[in-house]
Amino acid sequence: MSDRGPNEGLIGAADARPHLATPALTLELGVFERNLAHMAETCATAGVALRPHAKTHKCAAIAQRQIEAGAVGICCAKLGEAEAMAEAGIGDILITSPVVTEAGLDRIVALAGRCASLAVVADDTDVIAQLADKAQAAGRTVTVLVDIDPGMHRTGVATPEQAVACARAIRESNALAYGGAQFYAGHVQHLEAFETRKQVCDFLAPQLAAALEALDAADLAPPKVTGGGTGSHALDLAGGVFTELQAGSYVFMDVEYNAVALREGEARPFETALFVLTTVISANARDKGLVTTDGGFKAFSTDGPKPEITGGAPAGATYEFMGDEHGAVIFDKALDGPALGGQVACVTPHCDPTVNLYDVIHVLDGDTLVDIWPVTARGRSQ
Amino acid sequence: MSDRGPNEGLIGAADARPHLATPALTLELGVFERNLAHMAETCATAGVALRPHAKTHKCAAIAQRQIEAGAVGICCAKLGEAEAMAEAGIGDILITSPVVTEAGLDRIVALAGRCASLAVVADDTDVIAQLADKAQAAGRTVTVLVDIDPGMHRTGVATPEQAVACARAIRESNALAYGGAQFYAGHVQHLEAFETRKQVCDFLAPQLAAALEALDAADLAPPKVTGGGTGSHALDLAGGVFTELQAGSYVFMDVEYNAVALREGEARPFETALFVLTTVISANARDKGLVTTDGGFKAFSTDGPKPEITGGAPAGATYEFMGDEHGAVIFDKALDGPALGGQVACVTPHCDPTVNLYDVIHVLDGDTLVDIWPVTARGRSQ
Repeated sequence: MSDRGPNEGLIGAADARPHLATPALTLELGVFERNLAHMAETCATAGVALRPHAKTHKCAAIAQRQIEAGAVGICCAKLGEAEAMAEAGIGDILITSPVVTEAGLDRIVALAGRCASLAVVADDTDVIAQLADKAQAAGRTVTVLVDIDPGMHRTGVATPEQAVACARAIRESNALAYGGAQFYAGHVQHLEAFETRKQVCDFLAPQLAAALEALDAADLAPPKVTGGGTGSHALDLAGGVFTELQAGSYVFMDVEYNAVALREGEARPFETALFVLTTVISANARDKGLVTTDGGFKAFSTDGPKPEITGGAPAGATYEFMGDEHGAVIFDKALDGPALGGQVACVTPHCDPTVNLYDVIHVLDGDTLVDIWPVTARGRSQ
Repeated sequence: MSDRGPNEGLIGAADARPHLATPALTLELGVFERNLAHMAETCATAGVALRPHAKTHKCAAIAQRQIEAGAVGICCAKLGEAEAMAEAGIGDILITSPVVTEAGLDRIVALAGRCASLAVVADDTDVIAQLADKAQAAGRTVTVLVDIDPGMHRTGVATPEQAVACARAIRESNALAYGGAQFYAGHVQHLEAFETRKQVCDFLAPQLAAALEALDAADLAPPKVTGGGTGSHALDLAGGVFTELQAGSYVFMDVEYNAVALREGEARPFETALFVLTTVISANARDKGLVTTDGGFKAFSTDGPKPEITGGAPAGATYEFMGDEHGAVIFDKALDGPALGGQVACVTPHCDPTVNLYDVIHVLDGDTLVDIWPVTARGRSQ
């Protein structure tokens, strides 16, 4: 099979949508472009650089468009993701998770030789010393940022003293460049109420401020502070601390992020651009208000809410998982339910892990299949 | 990158395990071979054919070993999965979900021309008529089985009358061969208590019996009855109705299936062969009883229980998801927790959707990396 999947022959067809083999990950081109432009403008207005997180889309075609729209580069969650993106031609990458193994550090040094600008985060002085030795031995320079724990104990230094020790270790190595600090509060992104997100951000701000003050006092003021996300972006941009925003999900949106009211009383600035199209493959219980689609645990992320049905079923229809490869569309049996072979469109529960299930993204303009973009770094978590 | 991933260079290395780039899906070869042999023997003793479900592993190398161990062929959940398996040389395939679209039916007819033995299920007479027309036009014969709903309303005919109508439509077409009946009670597989599974199987038996009696009375007795799974296999084999068993998960096992006591008071006949190896990438909260690994929502299925830690952490350590790419290992802080860079091994929550996240399976014999098997049909849900 082609690496663009069973729908490759439909590229360019004006009536492609109803003929797509499903489950198919689809991107509404116009909405995607509006999301792209809106975040670029918002960051430009705030005077903050935009470095979108590519863990959301893992797609070089999208990364390229983000950069064309003004982004300074991209973030990657993992080394393998960064390798795939660099191989596809993306030149400015920040790896946002620590890499700690011997083999991993070797791969970072090798990647630095293939990438116009590569930066990594670190939260441990021993690891920084190892990376410095390897970079030195290879005659390369690697940019390293200090990762600061925002209180969720996922990654990052735990204290201002550790922040200073890491920054000093970076600064003192000839083979490393001191890139600044990262502070990513993943746990804030999905708090639904703006006031709650604001309170948590206000609570965290002193922790970041303490680390930054300690760095400043040690003559290690970070040349940049990177972090933030789609959920907290308005707060991140207004806070005056971040010089670079790592938002990712804004390009697609999903059921989770749609529940996050970015500013109470205002319209959401980003619209849903990403969907999964499914097909009704069994309808013998249609008179009971249930038909079965071809989208199950292997078609949608299952770490969050359920998929939300937006097309092809009566208003009020809901989705229930029916196993690995099947989903149920539940509807009022008094209404005319989806027919056998009909398509049902769903908003993805959580866009990042849903995209990671698919090899390709179908780009649609109306019913026209404009292109099929490979999910370049799918599964590259190593 | 090689299509065998970043660990290809370790194939054959006797000390590969601790050096694997992670998160890595690993298969313990000896356990896997015992599971393979045990199910083959159990079916042979019962006089029931074994057609393992390949949706579990999606791996041609495993399908080939199942067939060498006595399986008559494999099941595939989807057409795309079957195409990938056929392309990799597997000759006898049953597609266990209905295919209903024009393009899908065209692909079935085409696949029948490339596959020694292809069968599909159907639950709708219109679809059967369409498939017959297409097979006729192509001058090919396609084997079709009637899918019978075991009461979960996922797929299958709803009544004995519908079963007869479908079987008759198949029998009456010159281009279709009547392959028999499928009855798959997916909802029974994970009921933990043997008695509960037995009660539900006993409850369902009359529904299957009614359909079979109606088929028999219409002179359409199915040449085979296929179904059953790992959870219910002892009941399926003892019931005297199934002529073919579709069990899949027995090759790997997982947290869910390990909770299913196959027969109370007896040892589980299958052992855990599949694991995900992760690496500790941040340990600054180790004194609080928490370290962070590189395995999150993109490394484990999230439709069921949590991953279960089996190695690399103090007894009693538990796993918590920390987002797309991270997990927390929680342990008694009085104990010596995993060190930065250390490996932590986990049983997969649900093997099928976990395997579907990975491009390759690392085959280990002790610490030796014997081989890396591609997940041939990964993501092929279309």
